[in-house]
Amino acid sequence: MNTKIEKLEHILTAFYQEKQIPAHLSAATVYSLMAGGKRIRPLLFLDLLEGFGLELTSAHYLVAASLEMIHTGSLIHDDLPAMDNDDYRRGKLTNHKKFDEATAILAGDSLFFDPFYVLTSAELPAEKLVKLVQELSFASGSFGMVAGQVLDMDGEGETLSLDQIEQIHRLKTGRLLTFPFVASGIIADKSEGELERLREVGAALGLAFQIRDDILDVTASFEEIGKTPGKDILEEKSTYVALLGLDGAKNQLTEKLSVAKKLLTELGVTDGSDIFKIINQLEVK
Amino acid sequence: MNTKIEKLEHILTAFYQEKQIPAHLSAATVYSLMAGGKRIRPLLFLDLLEGFGLELTSAHYLVAASLEMIHTGSLIHDDLPAMDNDDYRRGKLTNHKKFDEATAILAGDSLFFDPFYVLTSAELPAEKLVKLVQELSFASGSFGMVAGQVLDMDGEGETLSLDQIEQIHRLKTGRLLTFPFVASGIIADKSEGELERLREVGAALGLAFQIRDDILDVTASFEEIGKTPGKDILEEKSTYVALLGLDGAKNQLTEKLSVAKKLLTELGVTDGSDIFKIINQLEVK
Repeated sequence: MNTKIEKLEHILTAFYQEKQIPAHLSAATVYSLMAGGKRIRPLLFLDLLEGFGLELTSAHYLVAASLEMIHTGSLIHDDLPAMDNDDYRRGKLTNHKKFDEATAILAGDSLFFDPFYVLTSAELPAEKLVKLVQELSFASGSFGMVAGQVLDMDGEGETLSLDQIEQIHRLKTGRLLTFPFVASGIIADKSEGELERLREVGAALGLAFQIRDDILDVTASFEEIGKTPGKDILEEKSTYVALLGLDGAKNQLTEKLSVAKKLLTELGVTDGSDIFKIINQLEVK
Repeated sequence: MNTKIEKLEHILTAFYQEKQIPAHLSAATVYSLMAGGKRIRPLLFLDLLEGFGLELTSAHYLVAASLEMIHTGSLIHDDLPAMDNDDYRRGKLTNHKKFDEATAILAGDSLFFDPFYVLTSAELPAEKLVKLVQELSFASGSFGMVAGQVLDMDGEGETLSLDQIEQIHRLKTGRLLTFPFVASGIIADKSEGELERLREVGAALGLAFQIRDDILDVTASFEEIGKTPGKDILEEKSTYVALLGLDGAKNQLTEKLSVAKKLLTELGVTDGSDIFKIINQLEVK
């Protein structure tokens, strides 16, 4: 197994094994944190730091952990009966199915607060920590992920344009996917101009993620995606596939991934670095 | 009206009037932010800063606003059907009754993320901002408010001892009430020893708040407390009143308030300052 993932998972589980935390809450948070996530966000962050020539420290792993915590909390809340009402996620029962709804709400809430504690525990200059906190909250709250989720919900049952879909996913998936890029730039002392281009990489990848999801909903089996496929069609969701057709969506995916790789190359990240492997794996044949 | 409250409410509403935030999300957050809260936490913080001889700046108001946002978000989630299932709060419909459950979950989530953005926007030294972020997340997440809510939920239907009740409320109400005290101490450059005593004030007041709530559930009308009274008895909750009787609970309340006032006096806060007025108002005759 990837050593980076091992180290990351050690931080995540060790944090919730802290005696002060009620056992019930630990069990629920760790259940979802260890439910088979591929750790793409933290890996993008760590691989990019390496791509920038930095040696990874435990501080970097704390930043990576904080990002994964928020991502996990958001999945727990997204799956709730009042939201997407999903019973399975990555082939395992969703948090509210394994525990109960109240537990799932509170486990999600903890996974939204605790990352700011974890992040500010990292041994990094205070000025950088302040910027990282601000970027992480910006990416998550009313300017980011939550805003995207609200727009997504508002758009249910309506036929949306490509622009409207992009706006939703730019916020819902894109903002939190932008964090690993901006955060590694902040830590690696990149210029304002470079940070802006790093944001563009994140935005392109965020859309790529969503297009990939829409494609897999049509083409993959339960085993492959760990949840019931075909849900988007049943719920008449406005997806990239519905709007562009399967081939059109695949082309869009390839294009977004190319944009991301081109920008990264321009930023001096070499072709052979791990981050390109992650990006290439997002391609759907 | 209190000028401090006016300034605070201006910050809260101005933040959510930001064009980038979806209108539906703005409406839901502002609804609960402006639903008649007494702003006790931010006032404790601002009054204490003045009690320490500081002149209030806009940075202080941003810290105060971040605290009120988390408090408000926690009320929205506490009221959800899967949690306390309350239809009214402060005499107005709860968020999920006014909007819907999904909106209430997401509005709460936003009110948990955004405060870290607001807090790090405050013009204060980066070292202090890092400490404030860490204290606020500590007070809110798995070491504080959320942990207390989990323990409270776990204890439902069981007869709890006074120690167990105190442990729940020390976390559920106490930790977030401790933040205004520790935060003002950090900003006013208090020593570690003084910060510890400020934590004790917050802990005492946190319990006082809960005892007061338990008393009012028995003695007050819907108009006085803005929600259905007698709910604790109906749900056979372990309350201070159930455990100590009404007079016993009132005595405990007076004692906790005395502890808080004594500690504050020892910390050099003068008797006439506004913070004592707030504390005295918590007394139940």
